[in-house]
Amino acid sequence: MNLLGTSIIGFSRSQSTTPCGHAVNPATGEALAPQILAASASEVETAVQLAAGAFAAYSSLTGKQRGGFLRAIATRIEAIAEDIAARGPLETGLPEARLRGETGRTTGQLRLFASLIEEGSWVDARIERAQPDRPPVPKPDLRSMHVPLGPVAVFCASNFPLAFSVAGGDTASALAAGCPVVVVAHHSHPGLAEMVGNAIVEAARETGMPEGVFSLLFGGGRSVGQAVVKHPAIQAVGFTGSRAGGTALMASAAARPQPIPVYAEMSSINPLVILPGALAKGEEALAEAFYASLTMGVGQFCTNPGLVFLTEGSGDAFLAKLQSLVESGAPGTMLNAGICKAYQEAAAAIGSIAGVETLARSANACGHGQSAPVAFLVSARDFVSNHALQAEMFGPATLIVRGSIGEITAAIAALEGQLTATLHATQEELAANPALVTALRNRCGRLLFGGFPTGVEVCSSMVHGGPFPSTSDGRSTSVGTMAIHRFTRPAAWQNFPDAALPAELQDANPLGIKRTE
Amino acid sequence: MNLLGTSIIGFSRSQSTTPCGHAVNPATGEALAPQILAASASEVETAVQLAAGAFAAYSSLTGKQRGGFLRAIATRIEAIAEDIAARGPLETGLPEARLRGETGRTTGQLRLFASLIEEGSWVDARIERAQPDRPPVPKPDLRSMHVPLGPVAVFCASNFPLAFSVAGGDTASALAAGCPVVVVAHHSHPGLAEMVGNAIVEAARETGMPEGVFSLLFGGGRSVGQAVVKHPAIQAVGFTGSRAGGTALMASAAARPQPIPVYAEMSSINPLVILPGALAKGEEALAEAFYASLTMGVGQFCTNPGLVFLTEGSGDAFLAKLQSLVESGAPGTMLNAGICKAYQEAAAAIGSIAGVETLARSANACGHGQSAPVAFLVSARDFVSNHALQAEMFGPATLIVRGSIGEITAAIAALEGQLTATLHATQEELAANPALVTALRNRCGRLLFGGFPTGVEVCSSMVHGGPFPSTSDGRSTSVGTMAIHRFTRPAAWQNFPDAALPAELQDANPLGIKRTE
Repeated sequence: MNLLGTSIIGFSRSQSTTPCGHAVNPATGEALAPQILAASASEVETAVQLAAGAFAAYSSLTGKQRGGFLRAIATRIEAIAEDIAARGPLETGLPEARLRGETGRTTGQLRLFASLIEEGSWVDARIERAQPDRPPVPKPDLRSMHVPLGPVAVFCASNFPLAFSVAGGDTASALAAGCPVVVVAHHSHPGLAEMVGNAIVEAARETGMPEGVFSLLFGGGRSVGQAVVKHPAIQAVGFTGSRAGGTALMASAAARPQPIPVYAEMSSINPLVILPGALAKGEEALAEAFYASLTMGVGQFCTNPGLVFLTEGSGDAFLAKLQSLVESGAPGTMLNAGICKAYQEAAAAIGSIAGVETLARSANACGHGQSAPVAFLVSARDFVSNHALQAEMFGPATLIVRGSIGEITAAIAALEGQLTATLHATQEELAANPALVTALRNRCGRLLFGGFPTGVEVCSSMVHGGPFPSTSDGRSTSVGTMAIHRFTRPAAWQNFPDAALPAELQDANPLGIKRTE
Repeated sequence: MNLLGTSIIGFSRSQSTTPCGHAVNPATGEALAPQILAASASEVETAVQLAAGAFAAYSSLTGKQRGGFLRAIATRIEAIAEDIAARGPLETGLPEARLRGETGRTTGQLRLFASLIEEGSWVDARIERAQPDRPPVPKPDLRSMHVPLGPVAVFCASNFPLAFSVAGGDTASALAAGCPVVVVAHHSHPGLAEMVGNAIVEAARETGMPEGVFSLLFGGGRSVGQAVVKHPAIQAVGFTGSRAGGTALMASAAARPQPIPVYAEMSSINPLVILPGALAKGEEALAEAFYASLTMGVGQFCTNPGLVFLTEGSGDAFLAKLQSLVESGAPGTMLNAGICKAYQEAAAAIGSIAGVETLARSANACGHGQSAPVAFLVSARDFVSNHALQAEMFGPATLIVRGSIGEITAAIAALEGQLTATLHATQEELAANPALVTALRNRCGRLLFGGFPTGVEVCSSMVHGGPFPSTSDGRSTSVGTMAIHRFTRPAAWQNFPDAALPAELQDANPLGIKRTE
């Protein structure tokens, strides 16, 4: 596929000639063609204005029409799966199989949202009919449903170049809801961004969508992203990335004359609590499964298990096995040089804190752009006394904390918000430790019994969101069909003539959706 | 009822001896006993800590248990209806009948939320069962439902001393969701606050609720309120009041180490568009009905119709009738001296803007604390050219704007967010003006066809919330059962043993609720 390195402004390509870098192969440090060109300020303005202009037409399409658009995007992405599989590993250091798998997840996600809106009940239609004779005053006819917020800004993630990027979860849910999307590309994988952006534009043209329903912007630093977030026509923001990046967007959004919601998924260390009964089922096998979760994708998952609690005196064989796995652990190429450096600095910072021991460190030499696993050990007492031990090490690093059940429960209660928390225990231990379970429940979006948090199912009951700072706003999820409500608000119609109501609210229920009435 | 003027800290009374004012009869300027005493910093801390301590126990009660608490509150409030009817008019200038009506609305609201949680389906339970054999990876068992956020701060409103105050909508929905509540009283009606606070504490004791499920704080200025909002244990804020007050709370909440959601209902001028076909049905009668809505409660409603659009050349008889009604309009006592002054200043400011004519002003003299109706007139061209004309005049004032349909549509599209928008038209005019209807729909939470926005039905389909600045966050409502989701977040359980799941998610569905599975 011939890549131009230019932004997509509605149905046109940017005319910019301002270079803002290029993709870099993280395994070699080599620059990858083409040169990327930054969208100009006027092109950013045009993209947002086109989105604003498209809102009325796009939001008034039926669910079936918007669903057809999402399905066409999925088909177009499948048609370029070979290009993605060829380019992706060069830009991200991820293996080809991962790119193929993520392509499938992305198209599956688009079709899941298509099904949701084609069926239509997601709008939560509520109908209360008039009671003209009700004392002391008549009851009006009142009907409500969810409506789209308006144009949405979506920021691509470094670690999911497809499933959380140009046509990823936020884009799919915003387009499903009826919101035009302006995507800000990630500098790490501009080639994939352009490929997928082209697929969306082709699908938009093919299915007769209004120009402006989608744009894709390239830019250096944060200027393009900040310009989009501050634009008065933008009504919500989706972001997956660092805590610094997410909180900067939150501050910008809150400082607007009209503050807008920001859904930033930022930082999570995903505690695991392993109780003795779970260890008794086989400490070495558990260590192997844990190590596989820790090092999957070189640890570059938001659900990576970066914190493990063991009760005092338990788990020696688990730790011994983990130690040998980490010491012989293979280095892996990280997504980009910045992430590689940040990981090594974060791990060094944790390792230098008083009371922290290095349990194990890979003995293998790291090649260009590579990092290797490391595991640290600390007492629960020291853990709770130093907030810095909660810092995320984005990569294959974990911190093991040992203490009494009481200390572990207190440490969990003092944790920052997390995407996930996992309890390994017998059913008897589960029943015997309600305070621990409550503490875990209160600190996370998804609570697992056994297993590992990596691997996030895309379905209607998934909650991939948790209290701050795992996300900016724990009231929503970035994965699964509930994510559509990031980009909607409830709206009511009072005493409206039936024919002027949206089909979802009309007396005859022409769409045949589930309603509360 | 013997009033002490002291805060309620859990099940105890404040020991403070620091005066912070007293209620004032707005009709006379007289001070009303008792002296009000400000909660000390350590009492504020205790109240929030008690709320945090009560969260685990309170949130794990069944819906039926929490429903019993809400019903007991309603019963206790009914038992003091005579006290409320006697004290209320002295503190607020509102007539006794209004206090009685609002008492009924408040108890009805508590029972509506009780019914909602006793039934239980509101949690939106979603169940996806495991598929151990699914390729390429097994599907886990995933179940989700809404859980409460944690302790909530609720600020009382000046203009609804019962229905949006101590036991008002935010308190009812937070308690229903499973969140302890710390209420910050409004300085305007401390006696009513104490009465209702006592009723809640008695109901909490009677139904065995944990201490800390409710506290009520008095304080001067904004210090107590800000201390509560900044407290790390508080997880959400409900507020009804001025734009300055609401945006100050938004800024404080956003600046916390852990930002929290603020639901502030602030400012709305509630546009009405009256098209010629609606005028043809009787201009004078329409003017009378409009005037009744404008002056109800001395215009002190968030849904007061402060902006009316007429098409050029139409509505002369409507305006003539409105003019005569306003000129002979009776002054009314406003809620407090601050609101009275702010109203007069806001009306004077609008009246002094270039292009604005005074259509009519009441010829009657205002007594102590009173204000009278006023109506202004401006062209659509001048209206869109000056943003200051969108300022709320909180009281019985309105601004009439005349222009072409195109100008009106453009003016609506340029409006700040509104709680409501109302279209008076024939069905033919409704069908002939889709751009106008879309513009109205995009700018408000509740869209009315005919009628007037004052009078907000408490029901499952009500949306009393709209785009900023009508509220801080148009994704929610402060009235009706959907308000419970202000204080919840979705949470998922993965591969949990059935017995350890909340009843709502257990296989046998022991609560018999509606679920998605």
